Amino acid sequence: MSATDPLNDDAHLRETCIDERQVFKGRFLDVRQHRVRLPDGRETGREFVVHPGAVMIVPLLSDGRLVVERQFRYPLRRAFVEFPAGKLDAGESPLSCAVRELAEETGYRATEWARAGLLHNAIAYSTEGIEVWFARGLVAGEAQLDAGEFLDVFTTTLDELEAMAERGELTDAKTLIGMLWITHWRAGRWKLNWQQAPHSPVDA
Amino acid sequence: MSATDPLNDDAHLRETCIDERQVFKGRFLDVRQHRVRLPDGRETGREFVVHPGAVMIVPLLSDGRLVVERQFRYPLRRAFVEFPAGKLDAGESPLSCAVRELAEETGYRATEWARAGLLHNAIAYSTEGIEVWFARGLVAGEAQLDAGEFLDVFTTTLDELEAMAERGELTDAKTLIGMLWITHWRAGRWKLNWQQAPHSPVDA
Repeated sequence: MSATDPLNDDAHLRETCIDERQVFKGRFLDVRQHRVRLPDGRETGREFVVHPGAVMIVPLLSDGRLVVERQFRYPLRRAFVEFPAGKLDAGESPLSCAVRELAEETGYRATEWARAGLLHNAIAYSTEGIEVWFARGLVAGEAQLDAGEFLDVFTTTLDELEAMAERGELTDAKTLIGMLWITHWRAGRWKLNWQQAPHSPVDA
Repeated sequence: MSATDPLNDDAHLRETCIDERQVFKGRFLDVRQHRVRLPDGRETGREFVVHPGAVMIVPLLSDGRLVVERQFRYPLRRAFVEFPAGKLDAGESPLSCAVRELAEETGYRATEWARAGLLHNAIAYSTEGIEVWFARGLVAGEAQLDAGEFLDVFTTTLDELEAMAERGELTDAKTLIGMLWITHWRAGRWKLNWQQAPHSPVDA
């Protein structure tokens, strides 16, 4: 096998679906249980969450500071420091979702956007992919949180976020990956292709 | 609020449990649905996976190369490049789990271990935390995969992983965070406290 061509040549690893069923459908989670054929011909079960996908925004202020949030996350019963993020609505493009979530959660609107990449945060048991978008040319406005959504918005620096991560106070995976992207982008190692903000119906 | 004290002072964000039930229990997934009280006194529902926790191992070879895997991940129906990882068995310490998973999946045993940190990969809908451990002083041996476990093991460099990530070929969140840790550790910014490998019953 080739380390530089990791997405191909996986026939000896592939699992195929024999039978499938939905075992739970709530307001948020859609849980599936599949019977699968393993590469050696034997069978096993796989259980996973079907997720619509999400976006995370890395909001860059003109002075180099970053916009982050502190939000209570019920499964872990505590607040987390995170970059703004949210799930895709049905039929929504990732960039439209990024524009919407940044405005709703923080009030900021950006004049330029760049797609950094995609991350998969729970490959063992979820289809979730999170697109990472950078936003700059930020103009402050009023946040418009969804009903039932409560969060603090504040600004910080990459140095402060790195110090928090080293102390174990910042553990959110998507946010840590946003920090990886900022580090490599600022060092000129990873490139971003900036585009003008899409025209928003809200502006009309 | 203080950006440097993010874990406290979250009374205005806190959600409390009113009612709870298990809505699915499979071979792997344990799914809960809770009724919660929001900070403004209203009620909503929360759905999430209860997870036993996991470890990821960053295996450092003496020449600076890294040991990684390619594994088929059924929810996304393709293979991913990842650092070795696995779930905690009941009562198992993270370090014992790291030693076991590294040996089972790759055959390597390490003479020194260091705990880098913790990450939470799906804070919106899972309790999962993944402890990140570095391993060095590696001695090769025979992998002992679980029944139904199929994966390729290969060695690579941080540069190669970073190039794959920039091209969108490496998207596994825990692995990207391992790369963040290697970068900061090699730069002397984030510290690791190395310890001798625990005595293993397998060696007795």
